[in-house]
Amino acid sequence: MMTITEALDQRRRGLDEAVSDRTRGASQLARRCLTILADYARSYPATDTPDLAEALQTFALDLRTARPSMAAVRNLTDRFIACLKELHGQPLMAARQLAIGGAAAVAQQSLWAGQEVSRLAAGLIDEGQTVITHSLSSTLLATFRSLTGRAVHAVVTESCPLREGLILVQELSRLAVATDYITDAQVGIFAARSDLAIVGADSVLADGSVVNKAGTYLLALAARDAGIPFYACCESFKFTEFGAENVMLEEMSVDELRAPELPHVRLRNVYFDITPARLITAIVTEKGVRPPGNATACP
Amino acid sequence: MMTITEALDQRRRGLDEAVSDRTRGASQLARRCLTILADYARSYPATDTPDLAEALQTFALDLRTARPSMAAVRNLTDRFIACLKELHGQPLMAARQLAIGGAAAVAQQSLWAGQEVSRLAAGLIDEGQTVITHSLSSTLLATFRSLTGRAVHAVVTESCPLREGLILVQELSRLAVATDYITDAQVGIFAARSDLAIVGADSVLADGSVVNKAGTYLLALAARDAGIPFYACCESFKFTEFGAENVMLEEMSVDELRAPELPHVRLRNVYFDITPARLITAIVTEKGVRPPGNATACP
Repeated sequence: MMTITEALDQRRRGLDEAVSDRTRGASQLARRCLTILADYARSYPATDTPDLAEALQTFALDLRTARPSMAAVRNLTDRFIACLKELHGQPLMAARQLAIGGAAAVAQQSLWAGQEVSRLAAGLIDEGQTVITHSLSSTLLATFRSLTGRAVHAVVTESCPLREGLILVQELSRLAVATDYITDAQVGIFAARSDLAIVGADSVLADGSVVNKAGTYLLALAARDAGIPFYACCESFKFTEFGAENVMLEEMSVDELRAPELPHVRLRNVYFDITPARLITAIVTEKGVRPPGNATACP
Repeated sequence: MMTITEALDQRRRGLDEAVSDRTRGASQLARRCLTILADYARSYPATDTPDLAEALQTFALDLRTARPSMAAVRNLTDRFIACLKELHGQPLMAARQLAIGGAAAVAQQSLWAGQEVSRLAAGLIDEGQTVITHSLSSTLLATFRSLTGRAVHAVVTESCPLREGLILVQELSRLAVATDYITDAQVGIFAARSDLAIVGADSVLADGSVVNKAGTYLLALAARDAGIPFYACCESFKFTEFGAENVMLEEMSVDELRAPELPHVRLRNVYFDITPARLITAIVTEKGVRPPGNATACP
C-alpha cells in the first residue's frame, strides 16, 4: 500500500492528466478517468471504508469538473460516485473491490454505448459515398472500421492546432479507406464534394446543440450550404442539462499555436465551438438516430 | 546587354517566381510581374523594335496565365500588352523606354486603385469596432494603417498551410492594433464576436462571387450566420468575365501540408475557394462600395 503522500501525488498526477490531455475524445478521456479512479481505489491507504469512500468521492468530484466542455467526463464520474453508496457497511477489502468493479462497469456501459453509436452511424453511409468529418472521434473511427470493403471515401481535416486529423488518416490508411486529407480552411470546398458530414461530439446541450472541437460549427454551416446532411454521433451520457449560455468553452495553452508573442496581439486557442441544433440533421446515440430536439432526453 | 541565353534564363526565373509565389496578394504579384517585364525590356538583347515587342509579348502572355485564380495578373499584363502597340515605328532605345514606362504606368494605376480601395474600406469601420479577416491582403493592411488611433480591434486567422496570418499580425502589432490571432477553425467563434468581416479578393467572377484564399467562404458563412456584414475589397482590374464553372481553383504543392505520404491518402492543397455573391454584403472597389450584382462591370 502507498503512503498518504504517494497517494496524494498519484491523485495530483491523475488530475493533471485529465486536465491536459489533448488527444483523447471525450468518451475515451472519461473512461481514462474511471481507470484513474480504480487505480486510486486499489492503492489509497484508507483507514476504513468511510475513509476510502470519502477519498474516492473527493477525487471523483475534482475529475468531474476537470473538463467543462466534456459532459461525458462529468456524467461517467457521476455514475461512479453513485456506485460509492454500495460501499456503505462493507469491509474495507470488499469496498475496494466494489469501487474497482463499479468503475469497470461504468466504463463497460460507455464502451457498449460507443459501439452501438458506431453501428447506427455506419447505417447512415451508403456504398461509394463520401463522408467529411472534423477532428478525431473514436466512435467515428469505429464506424469507418465497420465500413471497410464498402468503398466509402473519407475527407479528413487537419484539425489545428494539434492536428488530430493526422492520427485519423493514419488509421484510415491502415483500413485502406480512400481519404482526402485537407487543411481546416478547405472544409467549404470539400463539403460541397461530399455526400454527408459526420462528427463526434464532446457534449450535447439542453437545446440539442453540440459542443465539439473548434471548426465543427464551420463544417455544419458548409454542410447546410452544400445541402448535405450533418450528423453528430455521441453516447447519451454526453448529454447535459446546460444551455449554451452556461457553457464555458475551454481555452487551451497558446503555445500550441507555435506563434510568436507580439505586443498588442493576443494568441487565442478556444478549443471547442457550439454547433446550433438548427444546423444538425440528427444526433446518433445508442438509442437511435433522432433530430436534435428529440434526442436530448438525459440518460 | 545580356546574351539571348541569359535573357531566356531570366524569363524562366521570372515565370517560376510568378507561378510559385505564395505570400504576395494578387495585386502585389501582378505588379511584381510588371517589374519582371520592365527588367526584361531593359535587358533583352533585341535586334530591333519588332523583335523586342515580340519577346515582351510572348513573355507577358506566359505571365498572364501563370496564376489562373488571380484576375489581376491577367488584367494588368493585358494592359501592358496593350501598351506594346505604342512601340511600333519607334527606334529600339525609345521602344525599350516606352515598354519600361508602360509597365510603370500600369503598376502606378494599380497602386492608386489599391489606395482608393483602402480608403473606402476604412470608411466602413467605426471607432471601437472589431474586424475579422482571413489571409493576407495588402489592401486591408493599408486600411488598418489608415485606421491607427481609432481603437479598431482585429481578428486575424492563421491561414494555413503557409500561415500568411503571421505576417499580418506582425504588421498589426507594429501599428499597435489590438489583435486576436486565431486558428482557421476558430473563425466561427470569433465571427460571432466581431462587428464586420472584410477580406481582400484574388478575383471577382462575372456573377459577383469572389475567389480568395481557401477559408474565405467559411468566414462568409459564419458572418452571415452571425448577422454581421461581409465585405470583399479589390481593385476593379480583379474582375473577370468568367463564371464559377470556368474557374480553375489552383492546387498547390502538398509539401506545404507537412503531412506524411500514406497509402490510400491524398493530401489536398486547394488554395482558393469561391464565396458566392449571395453571401457578400458589398464589394469595395476604387469606384465605390456596391453590392456584388452592381459592382461587376469590367473596367
